[in-house]
Amino acid sequence: MTKTMWESIAKSKQAALISAIPPEWIIPAHLLPPEDQTDVTTFPRQSGWFTARELEVLATAAPRILAHLQTGSWTSEEVTRVFCKAAAAAHQLTNCLSEILFDEAITRAKHLDEHLQRTGKPKHPFHGLPISLKDNFNIIGHDSTVGFSSLANDPATYNSTLVDLLLSAGAVLYVKTNVPTAMMISETVNNVYGRTVNPRNRKLTPGGSSGGESALISFGASRIGVGTDIGGSLRIPAACTGIFTLRPSSGRFPNSQTRSGLAGQEAVASVNGPMASTLEEITLYSKTVIDQQPWLLDPKCLPIPWRPAPPKHRLKIGVLWHDSLVTPTPPVARALQHTVHKLRQAGHSVTDWAPTGHPEALNILLRKFLADGGESVRNLLKPTGEPFRPEMEFYENAAELGVHEMWQIHIERNTLQCEYLDRFNEAGIDAILCPTTPYSSVEHGKFAHIGYTGVFNLLDYSAVSFPCGVTASKHDTYQSSEPLSDLDAQIRDDYNPAVVDGMPVSLQLVGRRLEEENVLMMTEVVMGALSSISARL
Amino acid sequence: MTKTMWESIAKSKQAALISAIPPEWIIPAHLLPPEDQTDVTTFPRQSGWFTARELEVLATAAPRILAHLQTGSWTSEEVTRVFCKAAAAAHQLTNCLSEILFDEAITRAKHLDEHLQRTGKPKHPFHGLPISLKDNFNIIGHDSTVGFSSLANDPATYNSTLVDLLLSAGAVLYVKTNVPTAMMISETVNNVYGRTVNPRNRKLTPGGSSGGESALISFGASRIGVGTDIGGSLRIPAACTGIFTLRPSSGRFPNSQTRSGLAGQEAVASVNGPMASTLEEITLYSKTVIDQQPWLLDPKCLPIPWRPAPPKHRLKIGVLWHDSLVTPTPPVARALQHTVHKLRQAGHSVTDWAPTGHPEALNILLRKFLADGGESVRNLLKPTGEPFRPEMEFYENAAELGVHEMWQIHIERNTLQCEYLDRFNEAGIDAILCPTTPYSSVEHGKFAHIGYTGVFNLLDYSAVSFPCGVTASKHDTYQSSEPLSDLDAQIRDDYNPAVVDGMPVSLQLVGRRLEEENVLMMTEVVMGALSSISARL
Repeated sequence: MTKTMWESIAKSKQAALISAIPPEWIIPAHLLPPEDQTDVTTFPRQSGWFTARELEVLATAAPRILAHLQTGSWTSEEVTRVFCKAAAAAHQLTNCLSEILFDEAITRAKHLDEHLQRTGKPKHPFHGLPISLKDNFNIIGHDSTVGFSSLANDPATYNSTLVDLLLSAGAVLYVKTNVPTAMMISETVNNVYGRTVNPRNRKLTPGGSSGGESALISFGASRIGVGTDIGGSLRIPAACTGIFTLRPSSGRFPNSQTRSGLAGQEAVASVNGPMASTLEEITLYSKTVIDQQPWLLDPKCLPIPWRPAPPKHRLKIGVLWHDSLVTPTPPVARALQHTVHKLRQAGHSVTDWAPTGHPEALNILLRKFLADGGESVRNLLKPTGEPFRPEMEFYENAAELGVHEMWQIHIERNTLQCEYLDRFNEAGIDAILCPTTPYSSVEHGKFAHIGYTGVFNLLDYSAVSFPCGVTASKHDTYQSSEPLSDLDAQIRDDYNPAVVDGMPVSLQLVGRRLEEENVLMMTEVVMGALSSISARL
Repeated sequence: MTKTMWESIAKSKQAALISAIPPEWIIPAHLLPPEDQTDVTTFPRQSGWFTARELEVLATAAPRILAHLQTGSWTSEEVTRVFCKAAAAAHQLTNCLSEILFDEAITRAKHLDEHLQRTGKPKHPFHGLPISLKDNFNIIGHDSTVGFSSLANDPATYNSTLVDLLLSAGAVLYVKTNVPTAMMISETVNNVYGRTVNPRNRKLTPGGSSGGESALISFGASRIGVGTDIGGSLRIPAACTGIFTLRPSSGRFPNSQTRSGLAGQEAVASVNGPMASTLEEITLYSKTVIDQQPWLLDPKCLPIPWRPAPPKHRLKIGVLWHDSLVTPTPPVARALQHTVHKLRQAGHSVTDWAPTGHPEALNILLRKFLADGGESVRNLLKPTGEPFRPEMEFYENAAELGVHEMWQIHIERNTLQCEYLDRFNEAGIDAILCPTTPYSSVEHGKFAHIGYTGVFNLLDYSAVSFPCGVTASKHDTYQSSEPLSDLDAQIRDDYNPAVVDGMPVSLQLVGRRLEEENVLMMTEVVMGALSSISARL
């Protein structure tokens, strides 16, 4: 049987990716975990393939790495090599990469080391730090396929604005990470690179669309990665893998000159933001990017400098127990209850927050995504005869809207935005606490609801997804037997307590629009409450 | 002959407006200027119908009025009555109003006076100051027809966000002002209220779409008015009447809950901003509105506080001599040359700024306005059988675009925005100086080019239009005989030096996006250079 054009491209791209890994970073066969080993995050520490020194570097958070790099006690070359090796391992175990830039990363790291040695001081805030990027960021000389075979072997001729910013801030870019087709599926699977799996449990999805990033970071092969979010694409993968992320409001971080699967779609803005294993790394990245004054580089960026937010010791939090469409699965419901309990213990005020407007918001969001009748996706599939993936059937079957109808949808959205903000103000809350997704994580092909994240894309609110310390247990069961909807019933049927046993559960803390500093500070306060042992009145 | 439905509505709305003027503010027949008197701005001072005290109030700029009101040395009732009387006169002489709120304004003024007397201090920054509003701002109990008969006799049931903000800041709202149909004509004429004329020369247009405001303010019957701008609708009327305005970038001032002629159109955002006879009044208004933290009220407002901009003594200005489509008419060309000369004399650096991207920007702008195939306008005309006005024929004949094509236009716009910002940065300029329109003003029905303003809507740049002190002379002639386009040839044919003789000429100073404070400061610096008598090296 002859391969079709798209299959040949996919095969050669996958092979090229593996061959870009130097032989010394191909995991020896005898060390490869068996196919049925679900958790591969143990590999670096348990395989013996990493030196103690390498493990030390991998386990060091970005602020300390930077301190070492900036004083010259560590070299960027060494740090970069360690993260390249770890990324190579992560890819072999989870299929998380889309582009490998090891050679140029190491060359650049050496150059930065020489510069430091020559001048005695680093002049850049990210001096020598490896940062990973989602596939859709353009880097000159590398593909940005966003999962389409038609975009393979067409290297970028310009950098995304964020890439230029990171490079001039001293970062070392060493990998790009896998995404789902068009970045419009909430798992990470496409016809070019295939499926990325969750390193904590390879039977589960790392979420999407920034699931290559979440797999890489939760494996420990990147300290700071950058993903994007249009309906949950930062928060869903962060939640599925137990890491942190900030979904900023539109205009805070530069997003121009990036690849999109729905190019020109602006009714819901795609934003990008950091993903990391710790909150301090998220804050470090955010402040550093904004300190570069990205509004001088990107016409859509807002001239809002970094505004330090002093800790607030008594928060008023509205808790959204469910979104009226889908009940959180039992581990998530329990995590939310636990967090509310700890917040109250720590003296914070917690009040119920109704899901008013949530179903409408999700409905508007989906109509906006499908408004071109799937034409953008179709045009990207056509040149190579690539089929629509089954997850994209909505796009395949969508009818194009006229502009007049689109304007009416804008009015609906604006009304909803006004009503939601009024309600937020009237309640006098500082933030909303809610599930990031109904799941801790979920088996491949079963991620079915983006409502908990998507509503905040429609509102353009700032939100952090954070692991709350609770892990799923195989003993978690639904507390109510009444599904909220047919979709909820399906998700209840799909719920498999045994397979998610041990997976971390994340929650979402949501501030108003453009309150990034504030929502990061509040997350720290919430985590303080979660980690406190004794009750405080 | 029986009247059609729309004609009956128009007739009754016009009559209702006149009957809302108390008899004592109807200009006595013997004082009415003859129909052929072009300049009626002389009326308040020359008719004898205004007392010396009334003239003193009208001639006092808002900051001084506020000082009097806040110390209680003037009452809001007195000030309000004076501006109501002047507005009544302005309407009778220029047809500039759409709604009259005299009774409720005076009642409110009395209430504010009593409050001050009782408490000893004003608590509101606009305490007792009359502010006029363009017709599209909703005020409970009053129509917002934006020139459509179908929207008449349907009073608003909610206030626009800006209206709530102004009221809670202590302002007194006393009139709403006329607009063209759908606010999408650059003169001020519609089938409900008819045509507003320029009080400086009634043969000329006061511009549009905020032309009711510009007529009212240039007549002297409002110190601060609020208009809107989607393609030049603040700047064109300000320029046609020789007053000041600030077109802010989108998100700086609250615009929610207002009436639009193209509701839901967001590809080019409509913004609102102040119009006034002095720059200090523009600055006072802008700072006061932003100090109210409008981002807590309007989900589209940005949390950017007022950022004082210290004067910059050496500006670098790029001068746009023409936009490659239409040569400025001779008085405007001369005013630009004069201003450049004075800037250089004052030690500022002036460099040429090419019109790269300007035709494309205008083309994109117009396609966006027409993208719904005129359906929004058609739907507003239909219920009363109102015909399309001849100025709206583009809307009548437009074909609706599909969303996919709209997305491609967004991409075009984004590319243009990136290129323009890069060029601005590379040139290292502080601002662009250019004509606001090709005209000083122009005869009714002949305003034919919005390119000088529209490009900055597409870019969403902050811009001030200011009278530069030059007035048109009947002796001004074109310096080149070569038209830039067919449209330019038509505008040259239409140019009537005799009729514009004596009209003030305005120019536009343009900063980057969201640089409102900066562009206001720079305008002050430019005006300093213009008013300096001796050269400085």
